[in-house]
Amino acid sequence: FILIFQCYTAQEHPSLILTTKGVAEIRANLGRIPLFDETLASTKSQIDAEILNGIEVPIPKDYSGGYTHERHKKNFLMMQKAGLLYQILNEEKYAKYVKEMLFQYEKMYPTLPLHPQTRSYARGKFFWQALNDSNWLVYTAQAYDCIYNYLTVSERKTLESNLFRPLADFISLENPKFYNRIHNHSTWGNVAVGMIGLVMNDKKLVERALYGMKKDGIKEGEKDNDGGLLKKPGQKAGFFANVDEPFSPDGYFTEGPYYQRYAMYPYMVFAEALQNTRPDLKVFEYKNGVLLKSLITLLNLTDTEGKFFPLNDGQKGMSYYSRELVFSVDAAYLFGEKNTGLLSIAEKQSEVTLDNAGFAVAKAIQEGKATSFIKKSVAYSDGIKGDQGGVGILRSKGSTEEITLVMKYAAQGGSHGHYDKLSFSLYEGGNEILQDYGLARFVNIQQKGGGNYLKENKTWAKQTIAHNTIVQNESSNFEADYETGDQFHSDKYLFDANNPNLQIVSAKESNAFPGTEMHRVLALIKEDDFENPFLLDIIKIKSKTSNQYDLPYYYFGQIMSANFKYETPNILSPLGTKNGYEHLWKIGEGSQPEGNAKVSWFNNDRFISLTSAVSKDDQLIFTKIGANDPDFNLRNDPGFMIRKTNAKDTYFVTALEIHGHYNPVTEIGNNTFSNIKKLDIVYQDDQYIGIKIMTVGGDLSIFLFSFQDADKNSTHNVSIDGKIYSWNGAFTLIK
Amino acid sequence: FILIFQCYTAQEHPSLILTTKGVAEIRANLGRIPLFDETLASTKSQIDAEILNGIEVPIPKDYSGGYTHERHKKNFLMMQKAGLLYQILNEEKYAKYVKEMLFQYEKMYPTLPLHPQTRSYARGKFFWQALNDSNWLVYTAQAYDCIYNYLTVSERKTLESNLFRPLADFISLENPKFYNRIHNHSTWGNVAVGMIGLVMNDKKLVERALYGMKKDGIKEGEKDNDGGLLKKPGQKAGFFANVDEPFSPDGYFTEGPYYQRYAMYPYMVFAEALQNTRPDLKVFEYKNGVLLKSLITLLNLTDTEGKFFPLNDGQKGMSYYSRELVFSVDAAYLFGEKNTGLLSIAEKQSEVTLDNAGFAVAKAIQEGKATSFIKKSVAYSDGIKGDQGGVGILRSKGSTEEITLVMKYAAQGGSHGHYDKLSFSLYEGGNEILQDYGLARFVNIQQKGGGNYLKENKTWAKQTIAHNTIVQNESSNFEADYETGDQFHSDKYLFDANNPNLQIVSAKESNAFPGTEMHRVLALIKEDDFENPFLLDIIKIKSKTSNQYDLPYYYFGQIMSANFKYETPNILSPLGTKNGYEHLWKIGEGSQPEGNAKVSWFNNDRFISLTSAVSKDDQLIFTKIGANDPDFNLRNDPGFMIRKTNAKDTYFVTALEIHGHYNPVTEIGNNTFSNIKKLDIVYQDDQYIGIKIMTVGGDLSIFLFSFQDADKNSTHNVSIDGKIYSWNGAFTLIK
Ligand SMILES: [Ca+2]
Ligand SMILES: [Ca+2]
Ligand SMILES: [Ca+2]
Ligand SMILES: [Mg+2]
Ligand SMILES: [Mg+2]
Ligand SMILES: [Mg+2]
Ligand SMILES: [Mg+2]
Repeated sequence: FILIFQCYTAQEHPSLILTTKGVAEIRANLGRIPLFDETLASTKSQIDAEILNGIEVPIPKDYSGGYTHERHKKNFLMMQKAGLLYQILNEEKYAKYVKEMLFQYEKMYPTLPLHPQTRSYARGKFFWQALNDSNWLVYTAQAYDCIYNYLTVSERKTLESNLFRPLADFISLENPKFYNRIHNHSTWGNVAVGMIGLVMNDKKLVERALYGMKKDGIKEGEKDNDGGLLKKPGQKAGFFANVDEPFSPDGYFTEGPYYQRYAMYPYMVFAEALQNTRPDLKVFEYKNGVLLKSLITLLNLTDTEGKFFPLNDGQKGMSYYSRELVFSVDAAYLFGEKNTGLLSIAEKQSEVTLDNAGFAVAKAIQEGKATSFIKKSVAYSDGIKGDQGGVGILRSKGSTEEITLVMKYAAQGGSHGHYDKLSFSLYEGGNEILQDYGLARFVNIQQKGGGNYLKENKTWAKQTIAHNTIVQNESSNFEADYETGDQFHSDKYLFDANNPNLQIVSAKESNAFPGTEMHRVLALIKEDDFENPFLLDIIKIKSKTSNQYDLPYYYFGQIMSANFKYETPNILSPLGTKNGYEHLWKIGEGSQPEGNAKVSWFNNDRFISLTSAVSKDDQLIFTKIGANDPDFNLRNDPGFMIRKTNAKDTYFVTALEIHGHYNPVTEIGNNTFSNIKKLDIVYQDDQYIGIKIMTVGGDLSIFLFSFQDADKNSTHNVSIDGKIYSWNGAFTLIK
Repeated sequence: FILIFQCYTAQEHPSLILTTKGVAEIRANLGRIPLFDETLASTKSQIDAEILNGIEVPIPKDYSGGYTHERHKKNFLMMQKAGLLYQILNEEKYAKYVKEMLFQYEKMYPTLPLHPQTRSYARGKFFWQALNDSNWLVYTAQAYDCIYNYLTVSERKTLESNLFRPLADFISLENPKFYNRIHNHSTWGNVAVGMIGLVMNDKKLVERALYGMKKDGIKEGEKDNDGGLLKKPGQKAGFFANVDEPFSPDGYFTEGPYYQRYAMYPYMVFAEALQNTRPDLKVFEYKNGVLLKSLITLLNLTDTEGKFFPLNDGQKGMSYYSRELVFSVDAAYLFGEKNTGLLSIAEKQSEVTLDNAGFAVAKAIQEGKATSFIKKSVAYSDGIKGDQGGVGILRSKGSTEEITLVMKYAAQGGSHGHYDKLSFSLYEGGNEILQDYGLARFVNIQQKGGGNYLKENKTWAKQTIAHNTIVQNESSNFEADYETGDQFHSDKYLFDANNPNLQIVSAKESNAFPGTEMHRVLALIKEDDFENPFLLDIIKIKSKTSNQYDLPYYYFGQIMSANFKYETPNILSPLGTKNGYEHLWKIGEGSQPEGNAKVSWFNNDRFISLTSAVSKDDQLIFTKIGANDPDFNLRNDPGFMIRKTNAKDTYFVTALEIHGHYNPVTEIGNNTFSNIKKLDIVYQDDQYIGIKIMTVGGDLSIFLFSFQDADKNSTHNVSIDGKIYSWNGAFTLIK
């Protein structure tokens, strides 16, 4: 073994994200490439301060948020940066800092027991989770690569024998349920082992990273604590298997953008390292270049401010300004097709990585090559083969900002998935108009359950009622059973954004509530006499049984008016007892016998009006999140719900306008009223629906839609009030 | 009468806010003074568009927010600007526009009945309130002044006989209860009559404006619909009386900054017009120059973003960017002592008035004379003689923004006053940390009660419980009786901001709850190991009877942690049945037997921790505003309340820290925990209190305060745990 090890030490260092050629080019250009120089200066000042502060390698003790956790996390981030500084600035103090810290870890490791905190299914050594130990090794491998030639052969041997190889084995051999799965945790594990394997030129470790372990002792049918199968029969493991599985051919990551962001770093850093050391693997071409594609997809899964749509378990506020995305954008530029749109994202990030990729980006920016990164309306498929539904995004130019609609009709999304079939959210620029709640967790905030998932994530955030979609009989999709949900997905019916004034996404769901078919159509319609594109939301429900259907809309702001009578209770009770309903206060209820229920609210100086075609029996319910929340873990956001009871086949038809403005300094409000006078279903049968929209100014338009034939070339006819309407393709808007 | 009128027509025009000399200077400098030129260009484009749009003078019909109201309001604003443009640009089209609009009003006026909307005690003709008709005349008088010489003698006579004089008489002679009072409404009426009187050179009208009407038919003891006396015996009326009364010698306007902003315009515009036409009156020197002083005071009653503190009935968001303040800042510069700090406010406003004052300001800015407007910690007296309590503002430099505390210990504040004795609010920069609720009204938003005061303004916003102050037995100060409250005021005990690290405001209140004396001390304390100055809040209560005392703190954000057990009810009930308590949901309750109750919450990426010295019998109550709110008129903001029952003499002692930061992109929180380990009352008797503060790091400090001797030169001694502490002046902080 030692023989093999030694015969590979001739390999060049650094070789992972910096190469000797890259270092030479960077050194030759110091002081000439502003964005690189700025990042270098700020990194230098950060590391210089850390060096001054001294090294701290405490005995592991805390959960995330606690001192030892945060210190060890900081350590690997600092070591990686110090390593880069050593290469770029050629100043010994940086190498020395890394070396000394590594030897403190080396000294501690051999006698270190499992981390004392016991909540994880795969506890680590430095951290409470093996996952975090993997993070540590991914970064530390890079630091080691940078100071490799600074160390003596004997020093390397000490570090490798006492620290790196044992840790790599611990992560993999000793934690098969963590390491040998398809899961973002496993990806980190694989990459940790792979990165250190590359630096050590240890082919066995690299093989284990790429293809997993042959033997893992996982029993068939064994499940994790969320009820998910640890491993499907015949399931491959390792890095490539983890590229295969969670990404669709479009580069959509089934867990959603928040976790894709987290996963991007190990995927990209290892791909980059492999490309530099094992170009024979052609990693960036793997699965039709899905890694590079996925980065572009991820950038498209953001609002106009770069914040990720909080699909599934996603913490709001996370954005393409995160360090993982700084790294991935730079890597995707250098290793992809030199997409100049990425340069403008890098400009906004106002930093680059201190490596070959970051240098290439900064240099291209300095050469004026940056162009806008244009986000278009787009549909992304989900599923390994792209046949498991997906996510559709409509983007339409508004009066002041883009109106963005995100519809989710994807697969379950793994253990972080939500039971949110056919749900959607709506934005005006970076402001949420209709929100996806996100998760019930305060990442790294120790006061809130140590920063971990809160009970309410399961009881509220994952439940169907927490989303802007249909709930049948106060239950959740698949009765919130993960194993069941994991077997199904919704299906895209159509996505058409060819006409910027009439963009549509539509999808169907047949499994979430067995016996019930749901078909939703979401359209952004731009008409001259509307200030902004308005949303038309149509849901067709067909069921074998009579049910109660609830359609909530979660908004922000304060109710300004309603065109119907409602009662507000003197005593507030929860709306229900389970499946998330126990977390909703019912704060008002009314009904509207006259055909259209209209509610307007005010938020961020904006008015929003919702108009829904209702029957007199529909209950119109105002809600507020926060019941049965003993630790105040939930945000107390409001909702408006349309409830139909004893319905078998039915329709929900709703329009939503964003309009007007109020200036608290001039105290002038403009366009503060809805522009929709009437919204009617003028045609309905199993094949078609016709919606008539009449504006306050008296303009009429009729939206016609075919539920059974999405073919662009089909011709359709319906007769409404004795008049025949004909159109081509699944839909039309007749003025 | 006509004779008198004619013999004064030789007077120069314009002469109100533009003078012939001023016009000449402005014309000679066009294109050379950027801020003036910019304002001119944008005003020109606005008026050109209006001219193109055509004149609309509809038959009056609507309340504010409705079409006819907003149109007539726009008309007077446009006429005033068009008049100025005519003078400055010397283009006839502007004069023609004003003339044609005036003749449309002239044609309509003689047969116009009272406005059809009947809610006002003094209905207008063009508007539902005579107040708005007065607004109209104040602005229109200026337009008339500008085109005076463009009109023929006969045209003038027609306008004056059929429109201006009848309207001036209507506002005054026909509406004595509106016109002949001390009230911001009356000021507008006085100034309307005065401005048109000055243009018409009608001495009778000017006299009526300055000194009111001798006969008004108001009966002794007659009250308005808020229960306020219309007129005290011997009360003077008219403009000067309205300068005398609401302003304290410090320039504090008793109704508060929101209404002062509204009132500033008529005060300043008439003062300016008088200074230009009747310099003999020395209006700017009146009452020791209170008008100019009041503008400086008003600017100081803002947060760091220029937003007014929402004392009494104040709508949040109103700021020194309002048109009234643009006008007043410019006027105060020209007619005051050329305060160059005002120039930097004008720069922020980025516009000036198109008159002598605005030109002077823009010119001085161009000459580089602007300096920062520095807001210091300051106490302002209330009351005509300055002996009716006041408002104290503490400003202390924080880690990122200024920490600003506003304590109110003033008189009732007229009909717009709140029952908020000894209340305070706290800001970090422009963010509210502990809020004053403001009003329950959506000014000019028709959906909400036509934009008028909502029922909840009286039932919630004015009540004591809506404020961060003591409530006794679930009642309000003076049982919320205006007449009673109007007779009393709190008293300043001390205000000391000499030491920037230990700033204190303290005041007493003896009448709000008869038989109970309340003495509050609010200190901003800056210590090295605290990220920001922290607040120390001490309330000493001494009563003849046993009572329940509630001290609520209204915050924003989400509870992160509490160091005591609390229960959250399954069903929410209002906290009480009256005096505002009926609007609070009780969302949680607990108690803390260990001496210190600590609650932390998170808002705007900031952590805030409240630590209070409590007894085991104190109830710790979490609330949310919004019960008994059938029209969703209230904001659902949270509160934390400390309740002491069966207490006679007692103390509330609380510290509040603003600390830490959470970045949702890095997901790193820093300094997320309170730095106060323990807060103890270590000494208490009728004269003194001693508070010991121990930090997490073990630092000790003792705050000592004398409740009975605020003299700076007095010496005090107390013995605590056998140790004698001596200090000079009312307070000290011993480390
Ligand atoms: Ca799982
Ligand atoms: Ca009144
Ligand atoms: Ca601290
Ligand atoms: Mg969700
Ligand atoms: Mg399938
Ligand atoms: Mg108030
Ligand atoms: Mg007095």
